[in-house]
Amino acid sequence: MIVELINTGSELLLGRILNAHQQWLGRRLADMGRPISRQITVPDTADAIEAALQDALTRADLVITTGGLGPTSDDVTRDRVAAVLGRKLVHQPEIESQIRRFFESRGRTMPERTRVESFVPEGAVVLPNRHGTAPGLVVELNPNPFRSGEGRSWVVLLPGPPREMQPMFDDQVRPWIESRLPLEEAFVSETYRTTGLGESLMEARLDSALQPLLEQGLTVGYCARVGEVDVRFVARGRNAEVQVRAAGAILESVAGEFVFGRGDDSLEGLLVRELTARKMSLALAESCTGGHLANRITNIPGASAVLLGGYVTYANAAKTSALGVPPELLVEHGAVSEVVARAMAEGAQRVTGADYALSVTGIAGPAGGSEEKPVGTVFIGLACPDRTSVSRHLNCFDRETFKFLTAQQAFDQLRRELAKSRI
Amino acid sequence: MIVELINTGSELLLGRILNAHQQWLGRRLADMGRPISRQITVPDTADAIEAALQDALTRADLVITTGGLGPTSDDVTRDRVAAVLGRKLVHQPEIESQIRRFFESRGRTMPERTRVESFVPEGAVVLPNRHGTAPGLVVELNPNPFRSGEGRSWVVLLPGPPREMQPMFDDQVRPWIESRLPLEEAFVSETYRTTGLGESLMEARLDSALQPLLEQGLTVGYCARVGEVDVRFVARGRNAEVQVRAAGAILESVAGEFVFGRGDDSLEGLLVRELTARKMSLALAESCTGGHLANRITNIPGASAVLLGGYVTYANAAKTSALGVPPELLVEHGAVSEVVARAMAEGAQRVTGADYALSVTGIAGPAGGSEEKPVGTVFIGLACPDRTSVSRHLNCFDRETFKFLTAQQAFDQLRRELAKSRI
Repeated sequence: MIVELINTGSELLLGRILNAHQQWLGRRLADMGRPISRQITVPDTADAIEAALQDALTRADLVITTGGLGPTSDDVTRDRVAAVLGRKLVHQPEIESQIRRFFESRGRTMPERTRVESFVPEGAVVLPNRHGTAPGLVVELNPNPFRSGEGRSWVVLLPGPPREMQPMFDDQVRPWIESRLPLEEAFVSETYRTTGLGESLMEARLDSALQPLLEQGLTVGYCARVGEVDVRFVARGRNAEVQVRAAGAILESVAGEFVFGRGDDSLEGLLVRELTARKMSLALAESCTGGHLANRITNIPGASAVLLGGYVTYANAAKTSALGVPPELLVEHGAVSEVVARAMAEGAQRVTGADYALSVTGIAGPAGGSEEKPVGTVFIGLACPDRTSVSRHLNCFDRETFKFLTAQQAFDQLRRELAKSRI
Repeated sequence: MIVELINTGSELLLGRILNAHQQWLGRRLADMGRPISRQITVPDTADAIEAALQDALTRADLVITTGGLGPTSDDVTRDRVAAVLGRKLVHQPEIESQIRRFFESRGRTMPERTRVESFVPEGAVVLPNRHGTAPGLVVELNPNPFRSGEGRSWVVLLPGPPREMQPMFDDQVRPWIESRLPLEEAFVSETYRTTGLGESLMEARLDSALQPLLEQGLTVGYCARVGEVDVRFVARGRNAEVQVRAAGAILESVAGEFVFGRGDDSLEGLLVRELTARKMSLALAESCTGGHLANRITNIPGASAVLLGGYVTYANAAKTSALGVPPELLVEHGAVSEVVARAMAEGAQRVTGADYALSVTGIAGPAGGSEEKPVGTVFIGLACPDRTSVSRHLNCFDRETFKFLTAQQAFDQLRRELAKSRI
């Protein structure tokens, strides 16, 4: 099955917004065994949208478009798709009523131009929009006149705003695809999330161990980002489930200590979950990461049950006043030192009463390094109920990458500590 | 001039990584007056790359590719582009020496397979890679055999890693484009960054005032994201500079209070710059934003000169112990209240000795709302040297959007305060 994605929107090409749809839909469809084989972004112009759709239909069984369903003059996707497919747009009064109710429930009157959203291509399946006004649409082409040979194709039109598009895909498009476009053979994929081992070292550990499964048709993909490597196993056919499970067991045996989750799991999500399950609490004391750890932890729903407090102690005076780090330690060892990392973690633990406390102190650069402690040097302290440990790292990256990688290492230090006492 | 972008990489289509190149190159090229008219992502396969390049060359003067220049088996862009263009790959010993030196400077030996990066299509211009090994390449097609009519086209191959691609584009590709592919007429664009006024209200204020300039050929584009609206003016021809400047003056006069910067400016960058210029300092006290403000402020180089300390006081106990918020205020008014926001800001100001302190307390949801204070209610406190002000907002969004928007409002509150005393 060939799936292609067309993102419409001049702001995407002008670089004013990020194409987050490509990643989101790409991941969803890959995990459903129907990976996107081609993605294109075109401007909000009729000609560009028509050309892209016609071209995609020469190849694809399923074409998904995003954007251009709204009421303004640059929302031309609905019209142009209908034109390419030779369908009339038909007014659907029940959609108009839904849209009117959407506005009324917010104490507003429907602007007259929004009525255009209640016109749909003849024969299209309407996907109600629970988080906005423009419905999604599914149009079947039977046969698809743009592709030689016979066979049907489908065009799915989704709204541009992610908070409308994403639930519409999960609640309506995904089940529709799974029932109407079944895979010819079983498909199983699993993505393991790992941290602490580079891509090539991970490959070296896994590849020979996986060899028998690879010969049976399992495929393995690696995706390395800063501070993490995803390992993705894919298998098809009767034994798919067994093969992917076996591959997971092999990963667990050769590199299990580096695996922190699956799918969309994050290190911070794991920590909030594990600490909650243990009824344990956390405090954070950050210097060079400047609140990055606290921000990531508090992105997780339920973080408030775990995080008692966070301190961004950039200045030495703040390290002393907020965390009780003795000034003489700062003078004698410098703020970037093992003893200060230890004192920061223990200080945060003490002042908040948390069970665990993570501290970070380092030299993000570009200035401030020395021979003994070059730019990129980081000390991470972890105060546990019974003892404190400090690790040292060298993270030579730009500012934001430095913060992200350092947070990965700090979170991983706590993850490994919690793993010692699995509950 | 027609510019098209081809991103190669199966991870992009599988959604394992975000296509940040599209945004970055899109913005750069738009600001150079050569906007991307079409972007496509194809997998790392020879056929897909060949087909995409041939198709793009039927239209484009300039085709830019990213990715696939490395030494591994899925790096096939260099080979396939050479094949499509009918060029032999020629070994360039001086590139090989550069790559060997790159490894040696890091105390490593060049892996033999990396040698493939020193083969370039005959006649190509080589763009040295100062931050990695694979050089970029520029190939001229004169004439372009894929396009009817005569005329040349160019293909620019850039490496995939952003830290290699971005400086290569800025230092080498951009000047090359500007000198070799000059615009036929002057092109001027300016993007103003605004916050605090919605897109439609901004349009309503600007459109009639801009009418005379629009009739002279100026174009205006709006791009709304959460908590900000970009206003982009573009003009071409002899009067372009004058028109864009006049449009900027009109924006300043009808909505100047909402403008916080231009181009890639950020609110947090502005605050660090303005506070530094005033030799003033800042402290942060965050509840529901959980370190998001501190993280953004410390993403800005030079933040350490400004930010004395940040407190993430999720728990009431932390509000009291870290910031001295009286427990009776928390009991009487609740943690989400004007008086607590005030006490948090003044507490952060007092314990750090900072000139300014921002505080945030609110109900991110999904639970915790009441009739009087529904989910989304936020109080933002700003302690200034001479007084404290508190604003109230209602931000009904998912968790991360809520944090971002609240931070925009808090930063804007301080921006407006600082603007009263321009230096």
